[in-house]
Amino acid sequence: MSPNPETVTSQADALAKGSTTSGDLTRTALRRAQERADLNAFVSLDPDVVLDQAKESDARRAAGKALSPIDGIPIAIKDNYLTRDFPTTACSKALPRAATGVDATVVANLRAAGAIIFGKTNMHEWAFGATNTTSSIGPTRNPHNTDHITGGSSGGSAAAVAAGIVGAALGSDTGGSVRIPSGACGAYGFKPTYGRASRHGVLPLSWSLDAPGPIARSLNDIALLLPYFLGVDPNDASTAQAKPFKEQSAPATPRLLNLVGKGLERSEEVDLAVRKALEGGEASVEDAEIPNVQSFFAAWEAILHVEAASYHQKLLADEPAAFTSVTRAHLEAGRQITATEAMHAQKLRGRFIELLLNDLGGWDALVLPTLPVPAPRHGQDRQRFGGRDVTTQDSMTWFCWPGNLAGLPCISLPVDTSTNGLPIGMMLMGRPGSDERLLNIANQFDRDR
Amino acid sequence: MSPNPETVTSQADALAKGSTTSGDLTRTALRRAQERADLNAFVSLDPDVVLDQAKESDARRAAGKALSPIDGIPIAIKDNYLTRDFPTTACSKALPRAATGVDATVVANLRAAGAIIFGKTNMHEWAFGATNTTSSIGPTRNPHNTDHITGGSSGGSAAAVAAGIVGAALGSDTGGSVRIPSGACGAYGFKPTYGRASRHGVLPLSWSLDAPGPIARSLNDIALLLPYFLGVDPNDASTAQAKPFKEQSAPATPRLLNLVGKGLERSEEVDLAVRKALEGGEASVEDAEIPNVQSFFAAWEAILHVEAASYHQKLLADEPAAFTSVTRAHLEAGRQITATEAMHAQKLRGRFIELLLNDLGGWDALVLPTLPVPAPRHGQDRQRFGGRDVTTQDSMTWFCWPGNLAGLPCISLPVDTSTNGLPIGMMLMGRPGSDERLLNIANQFDRDR
Repeated sequence: MSPNPETVTSQADALAKGSTTSGDLTRTALRRAQERADLNAFVSLDPDVVLDQAKESDARRAAGKALSPIDGIPIAIKDNYLTRDFPTTACSKALPRAATGVDATVVANLRAAGAIIFGKTNMHEWAFGATNTTSSIGPTRNPHNTDHITGGSSGGSAAAVAAGIVGAALGSDTGGSVRIPSGACGAYGFKPTYGRASRHGVLPLSWSLDAPGPIARSLNDIALLLPYFLGVDPNDASTAQAKPFKEQSAPATPRLLNLVGKGLERSEEVDLAVRKALEGGEASVEDAEIPNVQSFFAAWEAILHVEAASYHQKLLADEPAAFTSVTRAHLEAGRQITATEAMHAQKLRGRFIELLLNDLGGWDALVLPTLPVPAPRHGQDRQRFGGRDVTTQDSMTWFCWPGNLAGLPCISLPVDTSTNGLPIGMMLMGRPGSDERLLNIANQFDRDR
Repeated sequence: MSPNPETVTSQADALAKGSTTSGDLTRTALRRAQERADLNAFVSLDPDVVLDQAKESDARRAAGKALSPIDGIPIAIKDNYLTRDFPTTACSKALPRAATGVDATVVANLRAAGAIIFGKTNMHEWAFGATNTTSSIGPTRNPHNTDHITGGSSGGSAAAVAAGIVGAALGSDTGGSVRIPSGACGAYGFKPTYGRASRHGVLPLSWSLDAPGPIARSLNDIALLLPYFLGVDPNDASTAQAKPFKEQSAPATPRLLNLVGKGLERSEEVDLAVRKALEGGEASVEDAEIPNVQSFFAAWEAILHVEAASYHQKLLADEPAAFTSVTRAHLEAGRQITATEAMHAQKLRGRFIELLLNDLGGWDALVLPTLPVPAPRHGQDRQRFGGRDVTTQDSMTWFCWPGNLAGLPCISLPVDTSTNGLPIGMMLMGRPGSDERLLNIANQFDRDR
């Protein structure tokens, strides 16, 4: 799938054995970033800064004082996470290209473990879109075929991982922004349960939907990185009850519901790939439907628009030209929603959670394709599948918003390749708080198992 | 102040000593209600139902099986609390005059203690107003002078207590609706800390501001009744962390801040009465100001209007004629507020809480008059005081909304009589959760002490 089979786990093994150094890993990553400049995956990358970090890591390890198994491993950071050494612009022209001197909590956790904070990745402007075609530095390109999009908003992170530039990268997910580009680029992407992972220092899109998450090249790497995301952060009130990472076993025969029906259409190729992948596990799988999907989608969209408009209110009033016209239109739409409409959306959200958690019964995981179609071509504005004809933007979030509206942990894993050579991803959603269990359920269906 | 000096405490003593019966107390209350029909304090009152309750109570007591010290004591209920035996109409023409067969949690608690659930009291339509002049059964009248209003929205409860019909009554408070009529009628009124008292079965006005509370004839009675309000109720999620009633001592010399300045004007007579009352205690008292009172008031008003409009949305669409034109205008105004405006109001609320709890320093109680003027005359649309000229509605909530916006426990106690023979009330607000301590601080200033 990529010229570089290296995972964070294999890099950690090589470092532990002394068969490589952080300097080597970092130089290789810098070289590959250069070689795949065509992907437009990075917005900030400073060789001096990262090589200095690698030098310090190698000195620690030589002294027998490695901070953790990931000490010395380069990890790329989406450009909406604050980072001490690099500017944070959310790929918007509105923010200054100057470092703030502050790390987001997850970045600080990784840095404290010795990870190399390896530059900032391209993203959809302000994370307000799922195609990654709107960005201050231009669109990202899919490593499998640069004529195709990566999806977004964490498109640069997924491209960098899928192209083997880095073993892992950070994303954020409000309606699928970790999972969409992971699915489109053939990486593993994880969105934790809402309120288990700190967003402190991650520029918000919609505070009641946002979750940060890792993108990596193996399930094992996801499990290795998740502890740096989960747990109480006094700087993010939503994590007040957050449990830290702790192994959870999965039932030998988990009960899976494959969600289908009106509003959840997909291409035949994608449907078959997911069904084939499901046959590879030991789970019991049944098809199930969600009634009125469209009204719950509208609730998600209203909450997203309102919270984004509230967050950007001042900047929108002071410097409207700081936003591209499409993002500005989204924010203006958010400003038109009335408070009672927003409250109705919140009531629908409550109903949706009840529907998934109670009405659908005692499932262990819900299954959907990550995307209804493989990564679209650049310039292709609409997608046709399963009798639907929708905007490319809507096709990207088609299956992902339910995980945010209900706050569920979700994983996208690559399961197949399309006839045109692009990855096909499958998504599993777990019950709230069962993040670790979801990883073990996903393991059944992992082709790298 | 009233023809009947009886308190719940004195009634409980008499019952315990056997010098009265529940039947006697209930018949007396029914007779007085009849005698003071001019107050228009009751919307539902069924002698058969309450006399049956009294008969059962007397039988229990005769058998030595009294359920609590208040077993057999009549307590009146505001018409927005669901009650098994009486209709609940919120004094709106929209609701059917038929009993629902269900008790609100606080009513159920009192009933379980053997209290006589003594009819339903007149209130401002849907609690959306503080004058009690808008009601399906017409305005309430002040027992001290029927040419004057009671204030509201719990006007019937305060009138019934102040007139000595019952020793205590239930109210609810979104911007002062317990304290305003208590102040105007010369009763004691208590609003608990937000989230300590169950609203289950109380028809909402604004769910993030509403609190239920007792109105009584002595501080001791408030303390006697408060345990029936406080504590976790699985049916009201806001009480998830609620502590039950537990005695809290107050410092011998509590630090009080007397709030004054722009936006908190009051008549000279009221100001002097409060200052005189404060001199009667042992507290240290300083004057303090709140900056930008008007913007915080606007935040309270926006939250109230939006939540009320959301709650009434369906009824407003289906049966607009069910509302009086003034209430309908309020609800229509609530529908026009945008979601980002409502979020801005919530941010101001957060700022206001910080300002009171942190910026103002380590106070034990904040002091305000309950009302800037004594109870206005019926038909008087505006009030002039301290250089201000405001609607009678605004004058009623003038000092009370801060307690709801910040969720603080608050008490109104009578401290003086105006030159025109109407009560003057003083309000004390405590820190969140210090409800019991606030009662002990208030005791310093109680003329009945």
